[in-house]
Amino acid sequence: MIDPWGSASLEYQELIEKFGVKPFSEILDDVPDPSWLMRRGIVFGHRDYERILEAVRKGEDFAVVTGMMPSGKMHIGHKMIVDQLRWYDSIGAEIFIPIADMEAYSARGIDFETSRRIAVEEYIANYIALGLDLSKKNIHVYLQSENLMVEDLAYILAGKVNFNELRAIYGFTGSTSMAHMYAPIIQVSDILHPQLEEMGGPRPTLVPVGPDQDPHIRLTRDMAARFREKFGFIQPSSTYHRFMRGLTGGKMSSSKPKSAIFLSDTPEEAEAKIRNAKTGGRETLKEQRELGGVPEDCIIYETLLYHMSGRDDDLEEIYDSCRNGTLMCGECKNNTAEFVRKFFEELSEKREKALRVAKGVLEG
Amino acid sequence: MIDPWGSASLEYQELIEKFGVKPFSEILDDVPDPSWLMRRGIVFGHRDYERILEAVRKGEDFAVVTGMMPSGKMHIGHKMIVDQLRWYDSIGAEIFIPIADMEAYSARGIDFETSRRIAVEEYIANYIALGLDLSKKNIHVYLQSENLMVEDLAYILAGKVNFNELRAIYGFTGSTSMAHMYAPIIQVSDILHPQLEEMGGPRPTLVPVGPDQDPHIRLTRDMAARFREKFGFIQPSSTYHRFMRGLTGGKMSSSKPKSAIFLSDTPEEAEAKIRNAKTGGRETLKEQRELGGVPEDCIIYETLLYHMSGRDDDLEEIYDSCRNGTLMCGECKNNTAEFVRKFFEELSEKREKALRVAKGVLEG
Repeated sequence: MIDPWGSASLEYQELIEKFGVKPFSEILDDVPDPSWLMRRGIVFGHRDYERILEAVRKGEDFAVVTGMMPSGKMHIGHKMIVDQLRWYDSIGAEIFIPIADMEAYSARGIDFETSRRIAVEEYIANYIALGLDLSKKNIHVYLQSENLMVEDLAYILAGKVNFNELRAIYGFTGSTSMAHMYAPIIQVSDILHPQLEEMGGPRPTLVPVGPDQDPHIRLTRDMAARFREKFGFIQPSSTYHRFMRGLTGGKMSSSKPKSAIFLSDTPEEAEAKIRNAKTGGRETLKEQRELGGVPEDCIIYETLLYHMSGRDDDLEEIYDSCRNGTLMCGECKNNTAEFVRKFFEELSEKREKALRVAKGVLEG
Repeated sequence: MIDPWGSASLEYQELIEKFGVKPFSEILDDVPDPSWLMRRGIVFGHRDYERILEAVRKGEDFAVVTGMMPSGKMHIGHKMIVDQLRWYDSIGAEIFIPIADMEAYSARGIDFETSRRIAVEEYIANYIALGLDLSKKNIHVYLQSENLMVEDLAYILAGKVNFNELRAIYGFTGSTSMAHMYAPIIQVSDILHPQLEEMGGPRPTLVPVGPDQDPHIRLTRDMAARFREKFGFIQPSSTYHRFMRGLTGGKMSSSKPKSAIFLSDTPEEAEAKIRNAKTGGRETLKEQRELGGVPEDCIIYETLLYHMSGRDDDLEEIYDSCRNGTLMCGECKNNTAEFVRKFFEELSEKREKALRVAKGVLEG
């Protein structure tokens, strides 16, 4: 296993030490043919993943739920979610993809119609272009505002949670809008509704999230326990993934265009952004030959780590030759820029086709 | 106009003096062919009823919304709602009858399935038996939990109301369940959704309520104003009706079986309850001949006032002959018991037929 981060960042460490999340490395060997995201430590933590493994081993039904918030544009950091879903699709999961238009309304003031349009043109089109076949029977994409079962379950769940609890988790105050306060409950419902009798009944459910989403996961697991008697809910499992850093070193964010390569960027734009990205190179070529580069600090290396799928040998070779000072940043950037340009050429072609079928996904 | 209450009770007076409700008597003359409930002061107050009158006068579209909470059994006090709806149906209103199963869940712990059964067997069957033709195109009966448009509008409305406001109106605390806190917003949505574009757009809407419901009305009118720009909502109008008192003098309530005649009572039970009801008679026949009875204190008289529809002449004659000591309670009770027994004989026959079609009402 490659761990380019060495000791994990504080935030990740805290989850594991204080909140009972377990290191994914401890169970990696039990995963049959793990994804590159697992092998490379990008998926770094979990809760109750054993339940998922057991279902896979026994060939039993299990669900994966991961929502999309239709605001802004997708960037390559978001691609990781789709890569994970493709992997779960390949091992037989039933996949639920709620589009959080209700949350987009209460959090960002985006109306349902706009959400639907963004979801179709930006998210659904890209999910398809990235290789997830949304027309498959085991994959369910829906808008929260169009899913009566989810809305009704949310209300039932809301019968056993109060303002004090939500305030403790989310910091709500008396002047928080009711819609904003209610949004997390709809999200809990998104995660639990695949276990309703009408949907096939209780089953292990996995929610792959970033570490910042763990409060939602804890609330969801709590609510599952409160309604265990009524619905037989099994507490959802979760995995935690690291986010790819931004091109300039900080967080990759849609609101900082220079930090991100957007999936809608042209191949040339994407290539140029890679060529301008922060590397882990030394001040001078001489220094780099002597000391080697620092791939741990290099966005170029991180790009390959997240997006160069397949075996790890090539990646390890790059890592080693960077560390031992034989691979210089110029060459490495050239190769990566080439890799990214090709990827974006293919993506833009695929997205054009995907756009034509994207709208139909929500009609089914 | 008959006003058997003389000066209205304190609660009613307060609505008019403090909260801006206007006496219905002031506009009664403008109502073409008013219902007996209006003529007799049972409908005693209103807000913005002029808007409804104007729509009627111009032959324009208007809506009436009045919900039912499917808990417990219907009693004759509830009949007044149906009588009002029949009247509005006769003058061309579009009628909406939400069944508050979501509220029944959060307030009483009744699940949706049970609510649906109670709604069909008890409420819908009785509404039909009482003469409201629920198969008509202008009458819409629905369960909140099955109405996506109402649930979605509720969420949109919830974007502009917060915990502090709901606490001020309803006395919610931090330990009130979120479902309970959210229920009034669904009710607001019930009232406003007939004005959505998909439903025909903004139009005058009337909500006939008891005085205890005025806080809901004020909240609804407030919310309508907050969303005027977005949806063009016209602030709903309201009327206020007095509740028939219980047979034993206090409040008529399903939870006090002796206080109420249930619509499911047999004709014999109903008759017996009338024969045992509190009257406004004097201690002795002699005294009554000298002083006359007190119809204002008489449940028998109140029964006739609410339920003997048609012209007021017969009622006035009874009132006068009671007051002047010529009509004794024995005879009056006999007549009323006879009237009630006949009514219940017919009702039970009609309900039997109604039960067979009641279920279909929610399928449409």
